[in-house]
Amino acid sequence: MGSPVNRVSMGDTWSRQVHPDIERERHVQSFCVEELTNILDGGAQNTALRREVESIIHSDPELSLKDNYFMTQNERYEAAIKKKFHVQMLAQRLGWSEDSRELYYANRSLSGDLGLALQFVFQKALRSLGSEEQIAKWDPLCNKLQILATYAQTELGHVGRSATHALVQAQLICSGAQQGMHAFIVPIRSLEDHSPLPGITVGDIGPKMDFDHSDNGFLQLDHVRIPRENMLSRFAQVLPDGTYIKLGTAKSNYLSMVVVRVDMLSNEVIPLLQKACVIAIRYSVIRHQSRLQPSDPEAKVLDYQTQQQKLFPPLAKAYAFHFVAKSLLEFFHRSYSSILDRDFRLLPELHALSAGMKALVSDFCVQGAELCRRACGGHGYSKLSGLPSLVTRVTASCTYEGENTVLYLQTARFLVKSYLQAQESTSQRSLPQSVAYLTAPDLAKCPAQNVADFLHPELYTTAWAHVAARLIKDSVHHLQTLMQSGADRHEAWNQTTVIHLQAAKAHLYYVTVKIFTEALEKLENQPAIQQVLKRLCDLYALHGIMTNTGDFLHDGFLSGAQIDVARKAYLDLLLLIRKDAVLLTDAFDFTDQCLNSALGCYDGNVYERLFQWAQRSPTNTQFLRNELQKTVPVPHVHSYLSDSL
Amino acid sequence: MGSPVNRVSMGDTWSRQVHPDIERERHVQSFCVEELTNILDGGAQNTALRREVESIIHSDPELSLKDNYFMTQNERYEAAIKKKFHVQMLAQRLGWSEDSRELYYANRSLSGDLGLALQFVFQKALRSLGSEEQIAKWDPLCNKLQILATYAQTELGHVGRSATHALVQAQLICSGAQQGMHAFIVPIRSLEDHSPLPGITVGDIGPKMDFDHSDNGFLQLDHVRIPRENMLSRFAQVLPDGTYIKLGTAKSNYLSMVVVRVDMLSNEVIPLLQKACVIAIRYSVIRHQSRLQPSDPEAKVLDYQTQQQKLFPPLAKAYAFHFVAKSLLEFFHRSYSSILDRDFRLLPELHALSAGMKALVSDFCVQGAELCRRACGGHGYSKLSGLPSLVTRVTASCTYEGENTVLYLQTARFLVKSYLQAQESTSQRSLPQSVAYLTAPDLAKCPAQNVADFLHPELYTTAWAHVAARLIKDSVHHLQTLMQSGADRHEAWNQTTVIHLQAAKAHLYYVTVKIFTEALEKLENQPAIQQVLKRLCDLYALHGIMTNTGDFLHDGFLSGAQIDVARKAYLDLLLLIRKDAVLLTDAFDFTDQCLNSALGCYDGNVYERLFQWAQRSPTNTQFLRNELQKTVPVPHVHSYLSDSL
Repeated sequence: MGSPVNRVSMGDTWSRQVHPDIERERHVQSFCVEELTNILDGGAQNTALRREVESIIHSDPELSLKDNYFMTQNERYEAAIKKKFHVQMLAQRLGWSEDSRELYYANRSLSGDLGLALQFVFQKALRSLGSEEQIAKWDPLCNKLQILATYAQTELGHVGRSATHALVQAQLICSGAQQGMHAFIVPIRSLEDHSPLPGITVGDIGPKMDFDHSDNGFLQLDHVRIPRENMLSRFAQVLPDGTYIKLGTAKSNYLSMVVVRVDMLSNEVIPLLQKACVIAIRYSVIRHQSRLQPSDPEAKVLDYQTQQQKLFPPLAKAYAFHFVAKSLLEFFHRSYSSILDRDFRLLPELHALSAGMKALVSDFCVQGAELCRRACGGHGYSKLSGLPSLVTRVTASCTYEGENTVLYLQTARFLVKSYLQAQESTSQRSLPQSVAYLTAPDLAKCPAQNVADFLHPELYTTAWAHVAARLIKDSVHHLQTLMQSGADRHEAWNQTTVIHLQAAKAHLYYVTVKIFTEALEKLENQPAIQQVLKRLCDLYALHGIMTNTGDFLHDGFLSGAQIDVARKAYLDLLLLIRKDAVLLTDAFDFTDQCLNSALGCYDGNVYERLFQWAQRSPTNTQFLRNELQKTVPVPHVHSYLSDSL
Repeated sequence: MGSPVNRVSMGDTWSRQVHPDIERERHVQSFCVEELTNILDGGAQNTALRREVESIIHSDPELSLKDNYFMTQNERYEAAIKKKFHVQMLAQRLGWSEDSRELYYANRSLSGDLGLALQFVFQKALRSLGSEEQIAKWDPLCNKLQILATYAQTELGHVGRSATHALVQAQLICSGAQQGMHAFIVPIRSLEDHSPLPGITVGDIGPKMDFDHSDNGFLQLDHVRIPRENMLSRFAQVLPDGTYIKLGTAKSNYLSMVVVRVDMLSNEVIPLLQKACVIAIRYSVIRHQSRLQPSDPEAKVLDYQTQQQKLFPPLAKAYAFHFVAKSLLEFFHRSYSSILDRDFRLLPELHALSAGMKALVSDFCVQGAELCRRACGGHGYSKLSGLPSLVTRVTASCTYEGENTVLYLQTARFLVKSYLQAQESTSQRSLPQSVAYLTAPDLAKCPAQNVADFLHPELYTTAWAHVAARLIKDSVHHLQTLMQSGADRHEAWNQTTVIHLQAAKAHLYYVTVKIFTEALEKLENQPAIQQVLKRLCDLYALHGIMTNTGDFLHDGFLSGAQIDVARKAYLDLLLLIRKDAVLLTDAFDFTDQCLNSALGCYDGNVYERLFQWAQRSPTNTQFLRNELQKTVPVPHVHSYLSDSL
């Protein structure tokens, strides 16, 4: 069993005693929390290693997050840069190599609150698009921070104040011919005095919604020359005589985005939702409000059905997406090495799946994290709850690395092609795995009759496949109808994008349901864990049905009466999950320091912590202590007004 | 016609020239923008007065908002307090009385960025719950800022750093008997030196999501004594001998909340959505991306169907809610004076309607404003776009003045009662107006056959009434079934709240559709305006259907084929509204200074403004100018690393 010492905030006297309201939630355990933690970590040895790293990180005062909420943008930025260097030194001293689990855990325990975050994007792009020679040259420079590198492609810059080198995605014009976007390493600042190099205009874009720990900049290049060998050349080369040689497909330049999208789900997006669930659910067993019965004491807010309806679907998603990201990563590893070797057969599916999953998962993580934040009432607005920064940070993931609508439509294009392929071909073999259901046998009506029927993974997976296939067919039909009525292909596409979006979302939901159910099958040797996760899987699938009932009713696949039965199944699940809710959040095993939330700590001492943390706020320290009278006009009210009014 | 001078940013050289991309949007006008502005203002004379006030406010350098995005929480707070006093002085000098239109317009033009905002809540409560004598005593003290008053009820305090008096909602215990919540005026700080009075612990709650311009505090009262006459006594009194006299109902104490909820929609919540629409739509005709046809230049992003699908439903809501708030205010004025005279017959409906509308409108305004923000891509994360602060500010309105879920359930309780009343009674007369449809004749199937049918206000209003009535019936049925199967009343209520929520939302949506259609009927003398607003009304009603298709399909009221026709009608509307989109945002007539957005100015010079504003950011001024080397470790990278790595 995991030592609770691992989970409590050290040093706070009240942490010695866990709040009885949260203690009671952990009293009867229907499953072993530590075992679930091990599954999430990918094995008990990983859990042990992670905790070891966490204890190193958290015992280092240089790496404390506790003043983050009180800092200005510049202070946050400076602190994050310092931490980045400090971690790099630690890694050097302790022998944590790049891409090691230790560094990954260090980053997790610091909530990614490190500067120079975009160097990582630079490196991912370098390793995907660069030749072996280029990787050997630039990668170690980044690792040792001898250059500060960034990635420059979109309107929202990645350049800011620190970067010395940028990977710039730009049109290659070769002997007068446009060859499309290619990646170039461009030195932008002097390594001597950090001043911008000739032809470079660079600066920070100013205040943002969160992300104060990293800088985002603008960059203007005016007749900047770089060496020929600074063009990344795994998939395209320019010879010294100016000859252009293409080694990849038109899509290969996007490979670096695929890498980052797959990676960001596990390392950034999903943990933010998980933390929001931890904070809101723990708080909801401490916070009491109103009475369920007039004669009762005030009830824990988690005992209200509406609170469960807010918090448990996000919790189910937090688990679902863990398995989705894992599965996507496995698919990625299966296909990546062959792509690097310029075998592009799996790239279209990988691209469509990673683009769409990035969109679906980030959309739901934002929605879920915001639900968690609002479920904490007024306290959810306090930065000290940790929730505002979780929400704003996960929100940005809907836009960076591909705006979600654009990404869904990438998936939709793949679905249209797959559908047409399925229509044309008599063989099923050629359809990529994630769309194989397009040629599978389908039922016209769902056979479910009672609540138990709706708790069969096969039943709801099939239901989702049916709806996805119908919507894809519908979207292709609309596209073709428009084209047959004379609209040109591009116009017809634009006028059906809203319909394609709907189809892509249903397809992606189906894939997530399928992955979650398949992951559960592998847990048959751990029946208690399997049972508790199955409830989350059921809830995930049914919540999707309840929020899209129209799609299931549209062609009579489900009847109104069946929807009512499904709703009953769904509402019943809320009550079942209620018992395990706190344990399910404990299993994520986030340390208090990493959560950095006055509401969400393991011990449940919400109000003491909130009060103590608020005392440290500049609104109290700078305002009340430094003699109110001298700093603001308020105390002058009377003299001020007697003069003027 | 309105002078464009009124709309452009003065002083910026590029403002002399409007960007051709936005100029073209205003070239052909299918309706008179100024006429629509007058309708929104409630008459041309109001428009003129508003502009006069705006020009006074905007020409006063003390009242500029332009540095807001660069300030710390303490700086914002201090600036907002200064502005509050400054406006008060202006009002005194210019003879703008309290509750005057001029002060209302001044507040609007400053985007409510004034300190001591909760004094307004104190005063609303005082005027609702206080006796005439009490109002006469305390109201002028507030108006002249001789006391700084606040309201203290919920967990999220309203007290903070400045308040000298708090209206505290607390349990009255009289001769040992609990008499429920009553309102008391409690002096909390010395009027001499502003120090907390004996028994008072008070301070600020620390950093928050936005709302830096006002302080929120914690307050502890320990054996604090106040004079008996500080209990607000319109609806309850305590005589000198300790006798308790009740003059109102148990609900009358909530009257002050009703007042504030009605008021906040027009004065705070809806303008935030309107501004978000203005910014995102104007930006979307400047921003070009990708091509609709391979041979075309890059298209305005507003020409993409998916962008229209993001922005036009919020725009339709921004208009719908204008009329909803107006109608609610009229109902409020009809009922308020009789309630003050202790005739409580209209209070239940007023309470249910104002609670529910506050929830529905604020929920949709948040959703819409966030859609607008995301529709601006990366720039929507820059505070300089104005969007992050609009979104975070409107988001808070889902929690303050009653958490939305709690409010929907207030409406639901009223609906259950009304439904049961409709069942029991043979007379329709007694049903309150907003639920009269519960006894109206109903169709089992919608007769719509083609796109034109779905554009009949009567058709979609009836469709919404059908769905609302069915869901209310369903929710009552579930409640009764549970109780008949042995669950007690409170438990049964809790276990059906998710179902009641759904019913309440459908009911409220029906009411908004009805109000919007009725408002349009009154515009028959302005056919061009009526036409353009009718498209928004159609879009509003159909968007509601498209996002809730399951509710319409459930009992076969609509068929799948009819849903497809409705979707066609909906998608066609997007294209029609596209032509008028910028004009519809112009009609709100927000000044550039009030929008305070680098993306949303009238002239469309987005990129010049963004670049210029970013230069003023501390991330550039404090960082780049103050010799980079001395302030952060970045430039030390090399020496630093050569030592350590």
